[in-house]
Amino acid sequence: MGIDRFLGKVDGERFILSDEEFHHAKVKRVKKNQHIEINDLKGNIYLGIVEDIGKKYIKGRILEKLSAEEDEFYLELFLGMPNRLSKVDELIEPISQLGVSCFIPVITKNTAVKGKDILKKIPKWEKIALNSIKQCKRLFPIEIKKPVHIKDIKTDSEKRIVFYEREKEFSLKKEKISKIKTVSIFIGAEGGITEDEIRLLKEKGFKSASLGRYTLKMEIAVITGICQVNFVYR
Amino acid sequence: MGIDRFLGKVDGERFILSDEEFHHAKVKRVKKNQHIEINDLKGNIYLGIVEDIGKKYIKGRILEKLSAEEDEFYLELFLGMPNRLSKVDELIEPISQLGVSCFIPVITKNTAVKGKDILKKIPKWEKIALNSIKQCKRLFPIEIKKPVHIKDIKTDSEKRIVFYEREKEFSLKKEKISKIKTVSIFIGAEGGITEDEIRLLKEKGFKSASLGRYTLKMEIAVITGICQVNFVYR
Repeated sequence: MGIDRFLGKVDGERFILSDEEFHHAKVKRVKKNQHIEINDLKGNIYLGIVEDIGKKYIKGRILEKLSAEEDEFYLELFLGMPNRLSKVDELIEPISQLGVSCFIPVITKNTAVKGKDILKKIPKWEKIALNSIKQCKRLFPIEIKKPVHIKDIKTDSEKRIVFYEREKEFSLKKEKISKIKTVSIFIGAEGGITEDEIRLLKEKGFKSASLGRYTLKMEIAVITGICQVNFVYR
Repeated sequence: MGIDRFLGKVDGERFILSDEEFHHAKVKRVKKNQHIEINDLKGNIYLGIVEDIGKKYIKGRILEKLSAEEDEFYLELFLGMPNRLSKVDELIEPISQLGVSCFIPVITKNTAVKGKDILKKIPKWEKIALNSIKQCKRLFPIEIKKPVHIKDIKTDSEKRIVFYEREKEFSLKKEKISKIKTVSIFIGAEGGITEDEIRLLKEKGFKSASLGRYTLKMEIAVITGICQVNFVYR
């Protein structure tokens, strides 16, 4: 199933895997003379050959720089925080695979968790985001921002969509398929978004859209919303 | 968030909730004189009023028959079985919410689990499917078929799509949005589908389609695939 990819430091013709990536490579039973891919987290992917497996490092030689281009699509996800923040833990990998660029936790009227508890979660989410890029072959991890109150949301994306249960008329199915470079989406948590909040979002340029006839759980709503956006605008 | 819906028996102007639905209604603290919705699993939804909460039954009166129409779209999901069948447990609710009509577990070359172990899982999957229809407001649960070997797959759906990692040309983005009544999709498990199997599926009228540039885990691939099909054909 292809060549394993690791995050590493590249300096000229040499690469080095250390710390967690070293351990990850050991678990994957990387061997001397094996070919691996190295993501330097600067937008480059290299093909390398392992030469030296030490006690703290794996070192080797760069064979070639691989072509690696990420599309220019920028997708921002504003997500109303659910009461169980562990639900978000499980969402980071899927939204990473689906190409979300930036994730912003949002505090709404129905958010029961505190801002500081959300803040505490961010290092964990960043770690999941970073780990996921190796498997799904993204170049960069999702950027995870600090939580914001819904009233403080700022965005200048070309398209702004809020997926809203009570919207019965408009859905992205009615949009023309067209390439857009920056899209923001907002999805509420279980408690839903209040009418005042929808009004607020509309003032900020968000258009409400339905996700279809059936009621979806938050996790599925998020994935469905992203799929639709990718489909229509990406 | 709307009126709670339960599965019940309806006879003329009377309804009755028993067994699990009785317990479910107790947990939901249904009270005398409360309005509830009843799905009779025959395609009808009723509005009822609770009159009698007994020790084994909840009984009441039908107030009106609600309009309930399911779209005519028929979506069949053929899914290569993963090694951990519990992954499928977690997929039943999302695919129910996303409107899959029929689910067929498939044994492929890379399937390591045995047919009889899949068979044993079916009652559990049926139960999850049945429970999920109350929340998401489907009329009928997903039909879950017995596992089939990939070579024995039979379908006469108008559209047949196999989502395939190595397909780089075609994706549903290239399809015209159009209403189709019957669609079958095939998605492999982690091990992937072999080239021989893709050939076999093509002989059966399946067209291979890409799900996008990033590598997706099976669960996300399934949801993404269904979203795309719903978007284009439903």
